[in-house]
Amino acid sequence: MTNSTPHIVSAFEDALKRLKSAIVQMAGAAETQLDQALTCLTQRNPDLALEIVRADARLDSFEHEIEAHCMRLLVLRQPVADDLREVVAALKIAANLERVGDHAANSAKRAAAIEVFPDTAPLLGLPNLGRLVRERLTSVIDAYVDNDAAAAMRIWSTDDEVDALYTSLCAEIERSAEASPGQFSAHMHLMMIAKNLERIGDHATNIAEVVHYVSTGRPLLDERPKADRSCDPAP
Amino acid sequence: MTNSTPHIVSAFEDALKRLKSAIVQMAGAAETQLDQALTCLTQRNPDLALEIVRADARLDSFEHEIEAHCMRLLVLRQPVADDLREVVAALKIAANLERVGDHAANSAKRAAAIEVFPDTAPLLGLPNLGRLVRERLTSVIDAYVDNDAAAAMRIWSTDDEVDALYTSLCAEIERSAEASPGQFSAHMHLMMIAKNLERIGDHATNIAEVVHYVSTGRPLLDERPKADRSCDPAP
Repeated sequence: MTNSTPHIVSAFEDALKRLKSAIVQMAGAAETQLDQALTCLTQRNPDLALEIVRADARLDSFEHEIEAHCMRLLVLRQPVADDLREVVAALKIAANLERVGDHAANSAKRAAAIEVFPDTAPLLGLPNLGRLVRERLTSVIDAYVDNDAAAAMRIWSTDDEVDALYTSLCAEIERSAEASPGQFSAHMHLMMIAKNLERIGDHATNIAEVVHYVSTGRPLLDERPKADRSCDPAP
Repeated sequence: MTNSTPHIVSAFEDALKRLKSAIVQMAGAAETQLDQALTCLTQRNPDLALEIVRADARLDSFEHEIEAHCMRLLVLRQPVADDLREVVAALKIAANLERVGDHAANSAKRAAAIEVFPDTAPLLGLPNLGRLVRERLTSVIDAYVDNDAAAAMRIWSTDDEVDALYTSLCAEIERSAEASPGQFSAHMHLMMIAKNLERIGDHATNIAEVVHYVSTGRPLLDERPKADRSCDPAP
């Protein structure tokens, strides 16, 4: 705590609560973006895609506001220990959520750009991967709200579920592409959407690391299975 | 400045110099990773790819060390104004450089995984894009060292050069893929490498925003041309 005067302690706690609540609000906006991007995959609605792309600017503003809030807290309160970790955690989580929004918007645009959807398995696998990373995002924000290091650790240590699904999806998309000459563009977009979803899963894992760090003071230094390993044969 | 006592001022300035020097060292490692990944594109050397992947852990360690350094500075010196911005800037630049390393490693792995390289134009375009983003990375680190807001602004405002090259490269890869049925996998790797290089360009642009902010105190709020827009037809 920065200061033992009850009034100041309480003002700082209030400021931290507002910061946490801004993060939760931003996470809600990112989740909505992801939900709508997944809807674009099944409905291919260009108007919805356009809406998602426009709404992405809101997430950028959220990040700027949270950053300004953090800078004010650092200057005015000069927090140390747990409180400093809370402020730095908010900066990092906001940066991750901003990227989630980018990946959702890019996925929506790509879904809208596919003229003829191949009638193959990837169309089932992509929404499955979408649902999995969506659940992980929700769980990690719950862990953040509850300051739950154990939940964060569970999320962090099951990152390979996303990798496994992503890898099998890449193989499916590749098979479908090889079987459908002349549809490279559609399959490339599907592959890039899969990559976007896998990256959203990575951001949930990054946030889990931050939540663990903020609630225990210890970084998760073990190498977690790197998502980029999947889909890429070992060199 | 945090304190007017000359001794403390000087100690803080020394700490900031060490922080800046750690960032420059990390940037050098990221640039080497990128150079080697570009070499993998022309030489397809699996041993070199493996080396790049292994060396990526060094960039992760650099980021952890810089973060620990920043946290110590925040706790011990409680900087405000310019000094606080310097510390937060270092956190952000390190996070961007760590991602540059990830994209370089992923590119190297993908280059090594391509069994038969299509004998077409993308093989010229990719190294060109690689060189462009490499130059931008070097320039933005120079701007950081020199605290040069004008140089940062120039880099930030020419992000569309990367987008233009990336977009034309995507079209080339697509044409090459359509003309070479049965080579989806190779073209998909080339497309993902192009995306990695474009993202490295984005990280250089992100760093330019940070450098501008740290040397002027003002964020670059105008929307820069978003790289993700390229290659994706407007929805």
